[in-house]
Amino acid sequence: MKPPQIRWGMLGGGPGSLIGIVHRIAAAMGDDYRLVGGVFSADHAKGLEFARDLELDPRRAYPHVDALIAGESALPQEQRMRLVTIATPNYLHYEAAKKLVGAGFHVLCEKPVTVSVAQADELARLVKSRGVVFAVAHTYTGYPMVRQLRAMVAAGMIGAVQKVHVQYYQGWINPILRDPGKRRSVWRLDPKRGGDSSCIGDIGVHCFNLVEYTTGLRVERLLAATDTGTSDNTLDVDGSVLLRLTGNVPGVLCASQIATAEENNLQLAVYGRTGALKWAQEIPQRLEFLQEERPLSVLTAGHAFNAPPARAASKLPPGHPEGFSDAMGNLYRGLGHAINGEPYDSGAFPEIDAGVRGMRFIEAVLQSASTGNHWCTL
Amino acid sequence: MKPPQIRWGMLGGGPGSLIGIVHRIAAAMGDDYRLVGGVFSADHAKGLEFARDLELDPRRAYPHVDALIAGESALPQEQRMRLVTIATPNYLHYEAAKKLVGAGFHVLCEKPVTVSVAQADELARLVKSRGVVFAVAHTYTGYPMVRQLRAMVAAGMIGAVQKVHVQYYQGWINPILRDPGKRRSVWRLDPKRGGDSSCIGDIGVHCFNLVEYTTGLRVERLLAATDTGTSDNTLDVDGSVLLRLTGNVPGVLCASQIATAEENNLQLAVYGRTGALKWAQEIPQRLEFLQEERPLSVLTAGHAFNAPPARAASKLPPGHPEGFSDAMGNLYRGLGHAINGEPYDSGAFPEIDAGVRGMRFIEAVLQSASTGNHWCTL
Amino acid sequence: MKPPQIRWGMLGGGPGSLIGIVHRIAAAMGDDYRLVGGVFSADHAKGLEFARDLELDPRRAYPHVDALIAGESALPQEQRMRLVTIATPNYLHYEAAKKLVGAGFHVLCEKPVTVSVAQADELARLVKSRGVVFAVAHTYTGYPMVRQLRAMVAAGMIGAVQKVHVQYYQGWINPILRDPGKRRSVWRLDPKRGGDSSCIGDIGVHCFNLVEYTTGLRVERLLAATDTGTSDNTLDVDGSVLLRLTGNVPGVLCASQIATAEENNLQLAVYGRTGALKWAQEIPQRLEFLQEERPLSVLTAGHAFNAPPARAASKLPPGHPEGFSDAMGNLYRGLGHAINGEPYDSGAFPEIDAGVRGMRFIEAVLQSASTGNHWCTL
Amino acid sequence: MKPPQIRWGMLGGGPGSLIGIVHRIAAAMGDDYRLVGGVFSADHAKGLEFARDLELDPRRAYPHVDALIAGESALPQEQRMRLVTIATPNYLHYEAAKKLVGAGFHVLCEKPVTVSVAQADELARLVKSRGVVFAVAHTYTGYPMVRQLRAMVAAGMIGAVQKVHVQYYQGWINPILRDPGKRRSVWRLDPKRGGDSSCIGDIGVHCFNLVEYTTGLRVERLLAATDTGTSDNTLDVDGSVLLRLTGNVPGVLCASQIATAEENNLQLAVYGRTGALKWAQEIPQRLEFLQEERPLSVLTAGHAFNAPPARAASKLPPGHPEGFSDAMGNLYRGLGHAINGEPYDSGAFPEIDAGVRGMRFIEAVLQSASTGNHWCTL
Repeated sequence: MKPPQIRWGMLGGGPGSLIGIVHRIAAAMGDDYRLVGGVFSADHAKGLEFARDLELDPRRAYPHVDALIAGESALPQEQRMRLVTIATPNYLHYEAAKKLVGAGFHVLCEKPVTVSVAQADELARLVKSRGVVFAVAHTYTGYPMVRQLRAMVAAGMIGAVQKVHVQYYQGWINPILRDPGKRRSVWRLDPKRGGDSSCIGDIGVHCFNLVEYTTGLRVERLLAATDTGTSDNTLDVDGSVLLRLTGNVPGVLCASQIATAEENNLQLAVYGRTGALKWAQEIPQRLEFLQEERPLSVLTAGHAFNAPPARAASKLPPGHPEGFSDAMGNLYRGLGHAINGEPYDSGAFPEIDAGVRGMRFIEAVLQSASTGNHWCTL
Repeated sequence: MKPPQIRWGMLGGGPGSLIGIVHRIAAAMGDDYRLVGGVFSADHAKGLEFARDLELDPRRAYPHVDALIAGESALPQEQRMRLVTIATPNYLHYEAAKKLVGAGFHVLCEKPVTVSVAQADELARLVKSRGVVFAVAHTYTGYPMVRQLRAMVAAGMIGAVQKVHVQYYQGWINPILRDPGKRRSVWRLDPKRGGDSSCIGDIGVHCFNLVEYTTGLRVERLLAATDTGTSDNTLDVDGSVLLRLTGNVPGVLCASQIATAEENNLQLAVYGRTGALKWAQEIPQRLEFLQEERPLSVLTAGHAFNAPPARAASKLPPGHPEGFSDAMGNLYRGLGHAINGEPYDSGAFPEIDAGVRGMRFIEAVLQSASTGNHWCTL
Repeated sequence: MKPPQIRWGMLGGGPGSLIGIVHRIAAAMGDDYRLVGGVFSADHAKGLEFARDLELDPRRAYPHVDALIAGESALPQEQRMRLVTIATPNYLHYEAAKKLVGAGFHVLCEKPVTVSVAQADELARLVKSRGVVFAVAHTYTGYPMVRQLRAMVAAGMIGAVQKVHVQYYQGWINPILRDPGKRRSVWRLDPKRGGDSSCIGDIGVHCFNLVEYTTGLRVERLLAATDTGTSDNTLDVDGSVLLRLTGNVPGVLCASQIATAEENNLQLAVYGRTGALKWAQEIPQRLEFLQEERPLSVLTAGHAFNAPPARAASKLPPGHPEGFSDAMGNLYRGLGHAINGEPYDSGAFPEIDAGVRGMRFIEAVLQSASTGNHWCTL
Repeated sequence: MKPPQIRWGMLGGGPGSLIGIVHRIAAAMGDDYRLVGGVFSADHAKGLEFARDLELDPRRAYPHVDALIAGESALPQEQRMRLVTIATPNYLHYEAAKKLVGAGFHVLCEKPVTVSVAQADELARLVKSRGVVFAVAHTYTGYPMVRQLRAMVAAGMIGAVQKVHVQYYQGWINPILRDPGKRRSVWRLDPKRGGDSSCIGDIGVHCFNLVEYTTGLRVERLLAATDTGTSDNTLDVDGSVLLRLTGNVPGVLCASQIATAEENNLQLAVYGRTGALKWAQEIPQRLEFLQEERPLSVLTAGHAFNAPPARAASKLPPGHPEGFSDAMGNLYRGLGHAINGEPYDSGAFPEIDAGVRGMRFIEAVLQSASTGNHWCTL
């Protein structure tokens, strides 16, 4: 018997928010959630109008997170919001997450979870002490073939990992960087709102997360060089990072937001003793499996012969593309199991530990880059 | 100001139905619809349980379409179901659609809309006389780059169309065809439930629809040869069709369900006097634009420079894949405009006329194939 | 011990000829041939200059084929030209081939070998009675992965063939067709020099050859519709052909020279009971192997695990592209074995029988197309 | 009027040598060269047999380079070998090159030209003082679309270069590395014969060369980390290199010979202010041209609209693949112009300066890698 739908709310993600749409579609995918309210906008009037458009109870369109906590906590348990998605600019994550976790809400937080390692550590402590479920929106882990990759590495199908290559090239910052007017409108390029890093904090951390998620290894040391693109910009918009993983396995992580005209070119290659696995986000339904002395295999999503976590992450038959929202939907599905106390796979969604690791990575990159490109430990 | 959410119901698409999930995700995409009930299963007990799982009012989980019509018609107008999606096996479409349209409901019907041209014509007459909106689920028309293709042809960017090639190759019927046990479980291979055609009726008609949708031309004549794969099967599982479009433009349409191990390999190429456009469903975010004396262009979804109908059909930035459910979501979005009496593009969703055309195509193919492969007019 | 280099000559393929360059590179690939003379140009002065450029004995730059036959026959056997490549316009093939074969020369002839079935039959008889080696330049059979495809079908790796799809789309005729000035300069569009067919005779016949070469089946019947593109053109520039192969296996063959802006888009797909093989000429080093219930395999050239005929057709390690000239080189290599009386694989090069089959195909297409699109037997 | 064919010889490249075949095909491509002799094998008997197989004058199958120089120098000028290709293991390059250049022969040398910067500098001095033509076999610069890339960067079509990414991943060393028997047979893994570097010296240097060749910028500084794969191997088989080019432009260069099961995965991406160019060796006929606010362009070889150096590097029409040997052929063609004193494009073939730069790169990588991964200048 299916458990009751989880009452769910959002911080941010309201009118005009792309990521808000993705979260609502994702939460709808398994019929597991019911949106009941949130703080949809910094402008309360807009938030109210948004709630009206969605035919939500306007009393649950709160002006701020404190009001949300107070309002929801006063409701009978079966009506009460249990999960809150945080989709605000980075600098607001920590305070909101701390309050919500402290009040016993489960949380799905956009990455990076905080703007410092200290905050992330503090949050992780709180999550553990309160016993809530805390997910981090590393959406790419929700793609079926990323889960297939992880399962195949774990099953030893490529042998011990001996080399990792990951790259994430985008070009969207490029035209903004050179236009001061445009630049002011982009919170990611404003250290006050986006944190100390642009490229590494926004996309480099996805690379890092994918490496640890798929290989099961840890990045132990790194050496990084970053670039700000223009002299009047203080945040990194490009970075290359040499990695050493558990057992001294070499890796390289390349990220750029000034890789002109690239769209969302995220690629991962994991090389093992006897084979390799390669995935590219722009055609996410495919996974290349290279083996010595054998032809290339191209696995695709939706097949019965895929590993169980990949199989469970496809809703449609092979050849029917599923995309970014579907990947996010898989995070929500796993999160639903966790919230309902049901068993779930360790790769079902990234938890607070992945958020902490991400912050350590960002901090180490910034430290290496700013201190003469030396090796730093995470 | 956003209009109220459209109350919406389903026939079929309940427990275990893949296409049902797609429709629910699609309807949720724009926050435009609210699922309120339906006939979710031929087994009423299962339908009730499904409604409970989705936390719908169990009184609106009806045992059959007549009960739905009666029940909904008795409700106050603002609560009443306005759109009903028909996702049952083909042979049930016509009766249900006729009743719903007759009672003034708007309808989204899976294709083929009926199992004969006569039924389709009758339905079209009824739709017109009742003034309801009737959409046909040719989902592929919902992909942004199919709409881009259509817009570019209409804008004369390839010159007058002089040749069309479309193919749809799948392999899923292949293992079923030779296993009598499996075959009985597949309604598409049972003439009583699937109609007189398998391959042409299920996938050939999508090819046909795409050709007329994108070129604006009509298929005037065709010559077809079909194949049943095995001697104990009576329905076509493979067919090749020579086409002549408006102005005697030649085309070829190739469809197969025994193209072993193909997934969902649907490809369209439209050649004009000065250029060509090519689209492949398995990587739907790309559209190839070939021009004489110029390099190949590859357009991708999500760009501001795409044609308005394509732009409106993308929710995410370039490089973030959207898939099959997103395409269906675009049909629901256009349909919502129509239901709400708002202006909408003629390509926003296929209407009953496209359903009638599809039936004429199927009938002409069967006629040509069964009478010595002569040219038949549509 | 390597046999002596085969003395070799050309008819046509001289100054300015693209295909002439390909033949010379191809013949050089295995160090098996030595170019000694030929009729390099219809203009003898130009032919002489060409011979001088290549530092050939000017006495062996003949004014016409009769002089070549007379001159070479007068030389001591070890100096004498043994192989002659015919690379002239189509209408000249038959007379030259007949004379050369009659005089005991081995021949490699561009396709189509003649301009009628009667000529081809006559030539075949002569070849057999004279015991010479006669190869037809169906160059695509020289690609390693076409040979791999053939070997895998023969080995039963996809089960019995149940469906064939082949297409060859080019756009180069398109701009020529509508420009009378340009059109006059293209011998393929002139029935006197190119024969009765343009599209089918030039590229459709390659499709046909590939089907018979790779499947081992025969095209028994066909139904064709062709198109001349413009009203003032009498030759086909577009054609679609329904096929029935040995055992009534269905196939479809699509060819066009007005597929605007297509380069050399030749694709073959062979579907069997349990798997399929797909090859595309523009990326010839890859062969897709589809299997039910298994991931897609992508075989590439140069691997030790490829079938012997494919292995033998690669000179370089995997990942080092070989192209069109290399494919032609493989025909020369096989032909060299035949000329030297060494054992050779039946797929090493297309022989006169393949030339005859090609002529029958062209004739059947023209007949079907001109008589109401009925089925014709080959 | 075409100049006389250039008499040409080889050191190495004899029986069983893959690269020897490539050189002979390449030299034959334009009918510009005539192979007359060489030192085809360290075993003189084998070299003689090889000469016999190729029907060369056995007196010109020399036992060693000194004999070649003596023998050829004694011949009349019009018969004398003018160009010698060096295709021996790396450690033999320098001595042979020095002698040949000293004796006034033109040279085409496989890379790396020497095993140290000092040797390379010495050789460069000698080349200049003797006025001979000295080419280095950076074959990838011979691909038409690499030349197109170079021409487009030079023409400002992507704006000022702001980021470079190049990678070369192979897997062939992987199985050899762990098998001591196999390892002994591979001279590249033997410091005495291959030099101080395996991965960087063999393939990393191609990356480096492509970067300088295509961007016109110089790598000024680098920071490298390398890996030996196993503890009993002393040579690098994997390396990642951070680059700073002229004007402090950042770059990253990734190379590996233990990227398991990769074939010859060399990829280059050059990002400029307004656009980018991307090329991948395994499908060399394509070049991606990314531009802001415009669709992706995919340029292909053989088109009249390509830049002159690219156009000149294609022998066949678009869509007819040319490969590795054809790329090498373009080097020979340019080299022929230089030898004949004809004008030639600065990108026609890499000269000794490129060889020297390559040695500086290798040396800087080894220095950075062995001294704590600090920045080193070239």
